[in-house]
Amino acid sequence: MTRVTLLAGGVGGAKMAEGLAALEDVELTIIGNVADDDEFHGLWISPDIDTMLYTLSGRINRDQGWGVADEGRRALDTLEELGAPVWMFLGDRDFGLHIYRSQRRHAGDRPSVITADIAERFGIKARLLLPTDDKVQTRVRTAAGWLSFQEYFVRERCAPEVLDLAYTGLADAQLTAEARAAITEAEILVIAPSNPLVSIAPILETPGLRAAIAEARAPVLGVSPLIAGQVVKGPADRMMASLGHRADALGVADLYQGLVQHFLIDNQDAALASEISALGMTPHLADIFMRDAEDKARLARHLVDIAREIIREHAA
Amino acid sequence: MTRVTLLAGGVGGAKMAEGLAALEDVELTIIGNVADDDEFHGLWISPDIDTMLYTLSGRINRDQGWGVADEGRRALDTLEELGAPVWMFLGDRDFGLHIYRSQRRHAGDRPSVITADIAERFGIKARLLLPTDDKVQTRVRTAAGWLSFQEYFVRERCAPEVLDLAYTGLADAQLTAEARAAITEAEILVIAPSNPLVSIAPILETPGLRAAIAEARAPVLGVSPLIAGQVVKGPADRMMASLGHRADALGVADLYQGLVQHFLIDNQDAALASEISALGMTPHLADIFMRDAEDKARLARHLVDIAREIIREHAA
Repeated sequence: MTRVTLLAGGVGGAKMAEGLAALEDVELTIIGNVADDDEFHGLWISPDIDTMLYTLSGRINRDQGWGVADEGRRALDTLEELGAPVWMFLGDRDFGLHIYRSQRRHAGDRPSVITADIAERFGIKARLLLPTDDKVQTRVRTAAGWLSFQEYFVRERCAPEVLDLAYTGLADAQLTAEARAAITEAEILVIAPSNPLVSIAPILETPGLRAAIAEARAPVLGVSPLIAGQVVKGPADRMMASLGHRADALGVADLYQGLVQHFLIDNQDAALASEISALGMTPHLADIFMRDAEDKARLARHLVDIAREIIREHAA
Repeated sequence: MTRVTLLAGGVGGAKMAEGLAALEDVELTIIGNVADDDEFHGLWISPDIDTMLYTLSGRINRDQGWGVADEGRRALDTLEELGAPVWMFLGDRDFGLHIYRSQRRHAGDRPSVITADIAERFGIKARLLLPTDDKVQTRVRTAAGWLSFQEYFVRERCAPEVLDLAYTGLADAQLTAEARAAITEAEILVIAPSNPLVSIAPILETPGLRAAIAEARAPVLGVSPLIAGQVVKGPADRMMASLGHRADALGVADLYQGLVQHFLIDNQDAALASEISALGMTPHLADIFMRDAEDKARLARHLVDIAREIIREHAA
């Protein structure tokens, strides 16, 4: 068994996690993103963490990539009748989870422990950790002012140009002991094909996390979330561009310079390989688009095989 | 328009309220029962108040007399999967209301105001008031010890013998200004055919409420919740018996002695009329069983007509 620790955001991260979880020779630990958490109707919602929970437990709505299959909207209908804002879709099954989490948070339980308990109840074998138990929230500056991440992402459907990003609470957030150990004890570290700015950055910049990676003996591999300059899902490409980054695999590699040693990019991006090499990381070409379970497992297999080869070379 | 104020509990009270609400010459105010309120999954649930809201807005599940029609249990299914106790059925639409109420309570809004806002949003014309904004909870002593009301009522299905009742918080509860005014300004006061011990008593014994009734100029009419010694719904008959009361209309009349001046009992209970007279209240015989909307409106009409006759006699 190889201990793999994955830093991952929402949909893309969950796909990568699913692929790794399918490998029988991998013991998977995921450090998820809590910076898109927010409160709705007095309940605490963790969209990225829930996408991970729903994906790994097979509850996910495969058509949309988030939310639960066979979902209802009766609770939301009532809230709408009562005049509550309902632009954030929250299904009935989903509400059950939010109610459970909120009650336990309110009782003072650590968010990490609550997440681990939910994962266990959902029959998930991988360990799902939080980078911090503190409240960290991505804020998005647009021409209309600062928005919460969900306001930007869901209410405004990522339409406004992103002028700046901030991560409230991040500078003072305390890295969980579990996340630190999962990094220092990992045999392979992987940065998932998630949005580098709003999914990976708030994990990476948790104080102490980069230091833990620097301390770790594991090779660090990344997978590009962009293929031929386009995102599979979400606003990463436009967000990269508006914030002055190249909106392609090279732009992502640039953000991970000094951290990621091996970077998987799509075959379509072969032309970027030499520039990625120049950043001090080894590019690896592959078909990184994950359509189905087979794709996910194949990419995960490929990733783990590359990492094992690196480990062998190091040992030699 | 005649101002009628109704003191009412759950299912029986809601039926009476529905009948009165159907009368075009009545301006109805209801003072509901909050003593069966409880917290589930971190949310504040008010079963009697919700039965009233759902009944008067036409949302009620007519087959069972409580809860919402076209209900789902997806949220509860999730909570069950997560290991939460789910003996209290809470439907998805219902959860929407509980989430809304809990958020506003948590924000510091008065429960009375929240209730009024929900009623307005639900298109209810009658005013629905709370006797108090404070927390009052009926406790039920059984051979196994003290239970919360919902533990006794739902979890234990009213099976244990009731050895004692207590109303936590009632002695210190503050009568709302709205409830006081609704009593002193009423033209007719009605005690609904609700359980006298667990629905009406916690309203009546709110400090200041009996004094307000004593001050009021309105006649006080009651409707028996027991017909031929049997309850239409709920445990009132067995509870009366185990607590040393007669389990029939006379036993209820006895509890209302000195308060109720006119008491409607069922034609089947004609034999009790003289004993009820002996308690100092005027018995009125009627068909008081409410099967459908027509029954409810007919009984309400009859009640209001009796009250108007009393008022006319007083004025004469």
